[in-house]
Amino acid sequence: MFEVAELKCTLDKIEYAGQIPDLRMQLLDLQQQIEAAGIAVIFLVAGLDCAGKGDIIHTLNEWMDPRYMGTYAFGRPSEDERERPNHWRYWMALPPRGRLGIFTVGWYGPPLADRLYSRIGEAEFLAELAHINRLEKAWTSDGALVVKCWLHLSKKQQRKIIEKTEENPETRWKITEVEHDHLKLYDKFLVIAEKALRETNTPEAPWFLVNGYDSHYRRIAIGRHLAHCISARLESDQNSIARLEPPLSSPGPSILSAVDLEARLEKKAYQEEKARFQSKISRLTRLGRQQKRSAMLVFEGWDAAGKGGVIRRITPAMDARNYRVIPIAAPTDEEKAHHYLWRFWRHLPRDGNVTIYDRSWYGRVLVERVEKFASDEEWHRAYSEINDFEEELTGHGIILLKFWLHISQEEQYKRFQERQQTRYKRYKITDEDLRNREKWDAYEQAVNDMVTHTSTSYAPWHIVAANDKYHARIEIFRTLCHAYERALKL
Amino acid sequence: MFEVAELKCTLDKIEYAGQIPDLRMQLLDLQQQIEAAGIAVIFLVAGLDCAGKGDIIHTLNEWMDPRYMGTYAFGRPSEDERERPNHWRYWMALPPRGRLGIFTVGWYGPPLADRLYSRIGEAEFLAELAHINRLEKAWTSDGALVVKCWLHLSKKQQRKIIEKTEENPETRWKITEVEHDHLKLYDKFLVIAEKALRETNTPEAPWFLVNGYDSHYRRIAIGRHLAHCISARLESDQNSIARLEPPLSSPGPSILSAVDLEARLEKKAYQEEKARFQSKISRLTRLGRQQKRSAMLVFEGWDAAGKGGVIRRITPAMDARNYRVIPIAAPTDEEKAHHYLWRFWRHLPRDGNVTIYDRSWYGRVLVERVEKFASDEEWHRAYSEINDFEEELTGHGIILLKFWLHISQEEQYKRFQERQQTRYKRYKITDEDLRNREKWDAYEQAVNDMVTHTSTSYAPWHIVAANDKYHARIEIFRTLCHAYERALKL
Repeated sequence: MFEVAELKCTLDKIEYAGQIPDLRMQLLDLQQQIEAAGIAVIFLVAGLDCAGKGDIIHTLNEWMDPRYMGTYAFGRPSEDERERPNHWRYWMALPPRGRLGIFTVGWYGPPLADRLYSRIGEAEFLAELAHINRLEKAWTSDGALVVKCWLHLSKKQQRKIIEKTEENPETRWKITEVEHDHLKLYDKFLVIAEKALRETNTPEAPWFLVNGYDSHYRRIAIGRHLAHCISARLESDQNSIARLEPPLSSPGPSILSAVDLEARLEKKAYQEEKARFQSKISRLTRLGRQQKRSAMLVFEGWDAAGKGGVIRRITPAMDARNYRVIPIAAPTDEEKAHHYLWRFWRHLPRDGNVTIYDRSWYGRVLVERVEKFASDEEWHRAYSEINDFEEELTGHGIILLKFWLHISQEEQYKRFQERQQTRYKRYKITDEDLRNREKWDAYEQAVNDMVTHTSTSYAPWHIVAANDKYHARIEIFRTLCHAYERALKL
Repeated sequence: MFEVAELKCTLDKIEYAGQIPDLRMQLLDLQQQIEAAGIAVIFLVAGLDCAGKGDIIHTLNEWMDPRYMGTYAFGRPSEDERERPNHWRYWMALPPRGRLGIFTVGWYGPPLADRLYSRIGEAEFLAELAHINRLEKAWTSDGALVVKCWLHLSKKQQRKIIEKTEENPETRWKITEVEHDHLKLYDKFLVIAEKALRETNTPEAPWFLVNGYDSHYRRIAIGRHLAHCISARLESDQNSIARLEPPLSSPGPSILSAVDLEARLEKKAYQEEKARFQSKISRLTRLGRQQKRSAMLVFEGWDAAGKGGVIRRITPAMDARNYRVIPIAAPTDEEKAHHYLWRFWRHLPRDGNVTIYDRSWYGRVLVERVEKFASDEEWHRAYSEINDFEEELTGHGIILLKFWLHISQEEQYKRFQERQQTRYKRYKITDEDLRNREKWDAYEQAVNDMVTHTSTSYAPWHIVAANDKYHARIEIFRTLCHAYERALKL
């Protein structure tokens, strides 16, 4: 989920300064409009340590009219607060209609901390999140606008900020043991935060993820997002579709643009590695069968990225009774008469088997989205349906691996040309392939959103640099073996 | 929640036979219409043992066209099923578009049983219910119609059916140890079932509660409900409001009509009891203060039912520093600028105190509903908002007691007359009181729905027969003392 929000986004000083006046004017103007319209706006900023939560609060207080807003941070509950139910203090801080209330961390703080320090179990954590959903729903049903932002950092970025802050004698005081402690718990916290964000990313109160490394970038991105949400609400475009979008404003890099397509592997090294991994895969899948652990391998990627080639080099390593390759084409009549996930439920492997999908349920948020075979509402809700589906699979013990094979447009064109020249490959290229090329940007956006929404701790996306086929195959073999090794008793 | 569904409803043989032909024709006709419209209908029957789940399945199979429907009951998972995720078997049984699938207990079976036998904890149970909500939501978002019925029995009714079935040599085989075991666990199961029904009573897939004691009544009630839901769906009236309605069809008794208004208490007995209870209340509230347990007493009821009189006889028993009486009138400007529950959050007692509400947040589903101050959508969603609110209160340890003081229309009229004749009471009677009398039926329906939706295991409604003031007061004193005794360390 956080892959895109980990990409560093920056805005230089001049660009930043240039954008401020308009944004401030817009925010001030919107403040008057919500006052006139009698809408309570609840703006929540959460995220990682050092990602700039405090800075956002200061900035908004500077940019907007403080007479019509309030800022609330919650620490340990006071005695007064402890003597009431947990949510009492949030209700008391609720802005009246027409006002803006800014909250840092707010009602997300206690459950996140309790789960991080294992004071509550997973099920209790989920119950707390459901509780939060009901709280926010009560407010939005009453007409309030709830805007939630998550300021994110990669582990490296967080470490770097901590180091820089400590180096400067003027800011050194900001870093305490808590920050160091949290840095150590980074990976654990991320799994928890991912769960929290997915569970509370409701149509009424969706999350917005922002990389918080650069202060200029985050201020503009969040200011714009707040302005956007208020405007949309005033236009009564209730925006009822859940999203966990990558930053809206100042265009950031896409997840695919961050892939190093230069990665190469020599033929000789490839052949050695291939032989080694195939024997390993053979051993591991046999062991998987014995231990009744099945696997589902999902291959998605650009046309001509080499999906088929990888699959043809995995299957020889397996026992033929033990795997199935399922190429996903148009659904049958019977399949069309059911929910789009039904046909994937149908083909679930029994324990101990391997199913390989050449394209998959992700068609819903890729081709069906871009080609408009699915309505906006349909592909939007597919993200959470797919997450639920995959959570069931992995919860049952299935090893689920998802690969996106990435190549450049130039490489794709080259391969199409080759196919046309190679007679026995010519059948593979159709008019549709050429049309798809034109939609490259739309697909790139779709991949970006897909990774943001469906790369989960239990089923992450593996983006594979595939301009060089040798490199791509070995990387996939390695990922596959790792996953089996983690899952099996060896 | 089950109060209304426990009331016995019957339909005599002649009336039953008279209603069948039309209903069957309607159901057959609707079956063809869903086929034509391509709507998958998922009909789930759950409920207590011996409440007639199997009978409903047989009846529907007899009444409708079996070529367009399938019936699914799920026992222990087969080996084939165990080797897939839990929900796999439900997905596989999903009716295609245009067909009807009938399920007994279905996906509710395993979590209910696991919780009953404490194989899972409360938080895990809640997570399972959330899981079910997502499952049903995936289906309804895809266009399926999900209709869920709960067949209910009071404990007495369940015992009687078991005895009758055992007496008859031809049906004796139907009763096994499981049924006896479940009868013993009746109270425990009810708390669990209530939670499950409340958590899964979603706008997409609401529950319908039916008393299952009389086979004629339940068949007609459920047949009609199914027909009603399909028709509504075909008219594309998506009926997006959650409900846990009392039986729709053949008008059953209301919860108030079942109250014995003849209950009386002699003046002398009253005075003795009153003195005894007041001293007890004094002791218990002081102990409550020491143990930091607060209480909230909610008084609702018909005008002139004697709410004020009870309150004036409770407060003298308490330490004046320790309680507050809050009469709920029209909200202030500041209160109007917030969510309707805000003003109740605001007045929450600190630990150890008692707050007495003369009318309360229930105004939303009573006067605001009947007088149309709240929109249908607003008062409908208030049920679950109120349940959440009260769950927070009791979860924090607050002793919450809710009383509805019930009197007959005649008694109310008599009291109004008296008030007009008694000078110092005359101010109490306004034109509005006289208007309200005309709305008696609408209020009775509102009370019925209020009890069905908001009488919970953690905050049940106490319906008090109040035609006789002495009787009513002592009953309230007794309930109050019981609640304190259960909650405190004595």
